Amino acid sequence: MIFLNYDVSLPQPYLLFLGDTTEPGYAKTAFGLRDWAGERCVGEFACAGATVTTGLRAMTPAQAHAAGARALVIGVANAGGFIPATWLAALVEAMEAGLDIISGMHARLRDFDVLRDTADRLGRRLIDVRQPPAGIPVASGRRRGGRRLLTLGTDCALGKKYTALALTRAFTARGVDATFRATGQTGILIAGGGIPMDAVVADFAAGAAELLSPETAADHWDVIEGQGSLFHPAYAGVSLALLHGSQPDVIVVCHEPGRERVLGHPGYAVPDIGETIELALRLGARTNAGIRCAGVSLNTSKLDVAAARHVIAQTRERLGLPVADPLRGGEAFELLVDACLRTDT
Amino acid sequence: MIFLNYDVSLPQPYLLFLGDTTEPGYAKTAFGLRDWAGERCVGEFACAGATVTTGLRAMTPAQAHAAGARALVIGVANAGGFIPATWLAALVEAMEAGLDIISGMHARLRDFDVLRDTADRLGRRLIDVRQPPAGIPVASGRRRGGRRLLTLGTDCALGKKYTALALTRAFTARGVDATFRATGQTGILIAGGGIPMDAVVADFAAGAAELLSPETAADHWDVIEGQGSLFHPAYAGVSLALLHGSQPDVIVVCHEPGRERVLGHPGYAVPDIGETIELALRLGARTNAGIRCAGVSLNTSKLDVAAARHVIAQTRERLGLPVADPLRGGEAFELLVDACLRTDT
Repeated sequence: MIFLNYDVSLPQPYLLFLGDTTEPGYAKTAFGLRDWAGERCVGEFACAGATVTTGLRAMTPAQAHAAGARALVIGVANAGGFIPATWLAALVEAMEAGLDIISGMHARLRDFDVLRDTADRLGRRLIDVRQPPAGIPVASGRRRGGRRLLTLGTDCALGKKYTALALTRAFTARGVDATFRATGQTGILIAGGGIPMDAVVADFAAGAAELLSPETAADHWDVIEGQGSLFHPAYAGVSLALLHGSQPDVIVVCHEPGRERVLGHPGYAVPDIGETIELALRLGARTNAGIRCAGVSLNTSKLDVAAARHVIAQTRERLGLPVADPLRGGEAFELLVDACLRTDT
Repeated sequence: MIFLNYDVSLPQPYLLFLGDTTEPGYAKTAFGLRDWAGERCVGEFACAGATVTTGLRAMTPAQAHAAGARALVIGVANAGGFIPATWLAALVEAMEAGLDIISGMHARLRDFDVLRDTADRLGRRLIDVRQPPAGIPVASGRRRGGRRLLTLGTDCALGKKYTALALTRAFTARGVDATFRATGQTGILIAGGGIPMDAVVADFAAGAAELLSPETAADHWDVIEGQGSLFHPAYAGVSLALLHGSQPDVIVVCHEPGRERVLGHPGYAVPDIGETIELALRLGARTNAGIRCAGVSLNTSKLDVAAARHVIAQTRERLGLPVADPLRGGEAFELLVDACLRTDT
């Protein structure tokens, strides 16, 4: 698996910080690091009131430092990406214990006086991975060499990054040259590079997507992490810019069975998978007329094996497309990989 | 006509700067100021090679200052909003003559050493109207009181702002309480306020649209200037965020007959008007199920009277909707205004 080169070198291993989070959907950064960069995570640390856990060993910043950790990574995000005042004491404690702070949130660490002063006093680093690179161009809309796959979702935080990572691993295991392209803070922490799509100025968002997956060899696959949802009342514009700029040949639509309301927007129903596929193909055809949907990725993490198998089979039958949960793997996932890579169309 | 209050007070009257522009589509800021804030424009000034003119008196910065001008407004935009090196000498000359500089481009005036040094030396102001306000929230998706109209286009730079301004004037003339909401640099210069949608960070773009047209009295109309196009390979994400956040009750689709290729993206065809209406209603229904299209605004500025009348009649017949060129006015435009304001649906 090849990752985008990026001019950052993050201090590691990590201590994962969970804030005071009670909503697992907001802790996807922590879960992603545990699952895809587990060798770089020594444990987790939370404030009073948190109910979410990664299952890693709970430890204080001092214990983590003694165990080798060199940075605390903020592993949770609120809607809007702000840093609540209740977290500041914990972050100061981490710096006192010898750890740098890494954040993927919109709020910049240096904008908090207490964090900046503490970091300056102790010589710690405050690293914001959500800062996009300078000089992003307006999208050209021109086609470029290489093959591209984009994951899209019926909502946020339901498996678009996991699916892209799992497909990249599977492509590589089959001897196919593939690169995971990260578009969000967790992906960037895992990959060591990427562009935080949601932090790019709106006029340049499609241009950022073009920059993220540049011209490659004809048989190379870029597997691009999707963001948001084309039906999301706040983030649909980001999703559309990423779709247009990525110019995917193949899309895989991600969904969580049983999720009925948009996360953080209970007034909005999660759209149907078929409707999402149809809209994505229609909009995506604007920059790549050859776009096709290879299949569906279901996040069945809240279901038991039998229930997961049932909903996967049912969805496959209903849509007439390969359907799999990449984290469960198996034949269903291999069929989804086959469908992604098939070149007879 | 009520305009949004904004915490800026721009120096005026203006001298309009046209750079070395040869493409009229890129000079929409200058044309907009001439047509909608003409009493604040003393003349125009261009570099060698420019072929575009507003028809205002050509004058040097020194002549303009003698005639009362207090600021040079950059009245042209390139794709991407950069400031080419060839303009810098002209901008320095303007400051030497006593004028402040106002820009609506992405590039910040203070980032150019020669402009910053000259401004500091002479005590001139460098004003960037494309700086969005701080603290824009993520869109909530919640409905709010008041009525909203959004103009949408089949491309950039073909009359979305003009149409919104003309409709606001027409609503007010009929005694309807209406506010023009500006989303781009020219509109902000005309209105004295607004939010530059394309400069907002992508995650907050729909939130900016919510902020721009807040809760109002039930019978008040916000008439919102559209941006980009849902089919634009670089800017569709901005258009979708504006559509979702504005939650319009009514849309008016703007088109320029005869324009076949997307401005600056000759590889892309301009979409059909009917297709644009259908997609806008489908996507807009996500945040306002009651959305409807009142009609079409055609920019017939390149046609003679007979040809304009013909294409307006033909388009009306083909689509079965009111069609008018707001700048030509007449009965066709009054019928479009009727359709916007009708409440029997």
